[in-house]
Amino acid sequence: MKKLLITLAAALLFAGAASAQELANFQRQAPVVSPEVSGGKVTFRLNANYATYVKLAGNWTREQYDMQKGENGIWSVTIDAPEPEIYTYNFIVDGVSVNDPVNYMVQRDGTRYLNMLFIPGERSENYNECSQRGTVSAVWYDSQILGINRRMMVYTPYGYEKNKNQKYPVLYLLHGGGGDEEAWSSMGRAAQILDNLIEKGKAVPMIVVMPNGNPNQQAAATMGLPTIQLDRTDPKFANAYVTSLVKEIIPFIEKNYRAIPKPASRAISGLSMGGGHTTSATALFPGTFAYICPLSCGIRESDHLDADLQGIKKAGYKLYWVGCGSDDALAYQNTKVLDAALTRNGMEHTTFISANGHEWRNWRLYLNTFAPLLFK
Amino acid sequence: MKKLLITLAAALLFAGAASAQELANFQRQAPVVSPEVSGGKVTFRLNANYATYVKLAGNWTREQYDMQKGENGIWSVTIDAPEPEIYTYNFIVDGVSVNDPVNYMVQRDGTRYLNMLFIPGERSENYNECSQRGTVSAVWYDSQILGINRRMMVYTPYGYEKNKNQKYPVLYLLHGGGGDEEAWSSMGRAAQILDNLIEKGKAVPMIVVMPNGNPNQQAAATMGLPTIQLDRTDPKFANAYVTSLVKEIIPFIEKNYRAIPKPASRAISGLSMGGGHTTSATALFPGTFAYICPLSCGIRESDHLDADLQGIKKAGYKLYWVGCGSDDALAYQNTKVLDAALTRNGMEHTTFISANGHEWRNWRLYLNTFAPLLFK
Repeated sequence: MKKLLITLAAALLFAGAASAQELANFQRQAPVVSPEVSGGKVTFRLNANYATYVKLAGNWTREQYDMQKGENGIWSVTIDAPEPEIYTYNFIVDGVSVNDPVNYMVQRDGTRYLNMLFIPGERSENYNECSQRGTVSAVWYDSQILGINRRMMVYTPYGYEKNKNQKYPVLYLLHGGGGDEEAWSSMGRAAQILDNLIEKGKAVPMIVVMPNGNPNQQAAATMGLPTIQLDRTDPKFANAYVTSLVKEIIPFIEKNYRAIPKPASRAISGLSMGGGHTTSATALFPGTFAYICPLSCGIRESDHLDADLQGIKKAGYKLYWVGCGSDDALAYQNTKVLDAALTRNGMEHTTFISANGHEWRNWRLYLNTFAPLLFK
Repeated sequence: MKKLLITLAAALLFAGAASAQELANFQRQAPVVSPEVSGGKVTFRLNANYATYVKLAGNWTREQYDMQKGENGIWSVTIDAPEPEIYTYNFIVDGVSVNDPVNYMVQRDGTRYLNMLFIPGERSENYNECSQRGTVSAVWYDSQILGINRRMMVYTPYGYEKNKNQKYPVLYLLHGGGGDEEAWSSMGRAAQILDNLIEKGKAVPMIVVMPNGNPNQQAAATMGLPTIQLDRTDPKFANAYVTSLVKEIIPFIEKNYRAIPKPASRAISGLSMGGGHTTSATALFPGTFAYICPLSCGIRESDHLDADLQGIKKAGYKLYWVGCGSDDALAYQNTKVLDAALTRNGMEHTTFISANGHEWRNWRLYLNTFAPLLFK
């Protein structure tokens, strides 16, 4: 290969001349490692020589941990590792909540960027990166029903680009209140979970479509786009989105992706509000989805409950899988209502009750549990 | 349409029962608007009743602004708006840097999440969302040369999914030191700039490929993947990445996307270190790219400079466009070297000198300026 002093020199030279903005962060905090997971313990560290006190707050406990100031102004605390899962945490420096500046793993929950703590183990093994990774795309579709251009995330499995004659089933995966189209990719680790399950042969390769379930939004608030005015007392408010899902998003996906355009190759699942969208979409449009998985939601008794379920039963389905946490007070009661209604209507179903409450460690667990059951 | 009390009720009920984590943020800060741009002024606000002092720091000035505590513990300051552009800022609360919790517009620079301030105007009009939006995908490719699976961002223009017989030219757009594959999408607003230029008919629809230029990385540090060990004194270090770009990324793109596989339909541009990659790739593989746009980089004199440029001249090119800021001390000197070398080698070129230095407001400006010149 030809000698290229100029090019090599230029590349190295300007690597060193990069934006001061960009590099300051690296140089300042290079020696601090946080969090450090080792031998059943986790150590958190913060370089904050100016601080009077520093505490650690994490979503695995209500306790706040006092951190101790060590040499060079680095505060630290070592705790017993919580059980394998993904958690979020932050520091409290003289009363002010701040993120850990050296932890590059960040998840977004609604409008907040949260530091992520990954504790490896059997339960969390599918939440980590594996070697065969799908593509995650931010895609826009025009909604005539809502009158706006809207963003969704689309996961296509490893091999999608290569296997140009293969068609795939589709899971429509819906977020909850306060969330948006990125919730399942960020907090939910949906891409990692599907990558792992597919690589291990536990789930069939599938497309996963994660729309924005807030009908007044074009996209996540973090995109800075104006919202539209909706009369939330108008019954159309709830149905407009699920109608757009079935009448606009499904046709868009089946036109633009190699999706199998059949009910037996469509699944729908959602958490909390998205669980409401799941029961709503399947009742309004029975027979559209053969796989139905409402999470942390359940249903309320009503005059129309049995008729709606009979509509779903008559149209046919392959899986009705319900997930809920035993500490999720409201959703647990409504899950029991849904479970009883499915039973009295003679509908085969699975009700999966986990520990814990209305939280992402449950929603990741549910996706990891039901995805292997789809399209088989 | 059938009455569906259950589904509507469930949807509304569980919208209210969403994760406390997710909703707390909305409820707590609902009344505070920050930043508010109006009548040539910008007002910043922070709800921080506990604080002793709050300051505002922004990248448009070296000055820090004292904020005043008002009723209800909301601190604020109103300043003259800087000239139309995108800026970043943060608050300093009792000495601790924190982001603005109610500004959902966030950009990532390296490993830091920064609040974004958008000042509208002629210069920044293409940095905002328009109505016809392309798709941005996170795509993985296997690099045999670097021995890792690597992530890149791929922008496909509005209409790509619909116009299934259309083929597109491709711009390979490279980041600088401290950056990664998301730098141009986040700080650089590349998708918005291309969306606007294409919608206005100023640029031809094109694919934009934004790889990761750190050869030891699989992906941005925020993805949490291990890096590989590279001997940075080994000359292969610089060339391995540009070799992967030309020998692996280009074939991957031309196989998996409807890309026109010809030099006249390939452009390469990069900032700082990515400008080094641009001059390096075009010297190592002359004739691969017909459009060559190194930014904030230039080149150093060397024994091989003229021979390298003659190689590019002989292979043929359509545009050699060089951008640099007049306050960018090192890169400006090297840009003059490159400009003089192109001139003495009889190579037609454009050297575009802007105000300001080694910073994103220049790189957005350069992309917005040269993209309309590509593939015409």
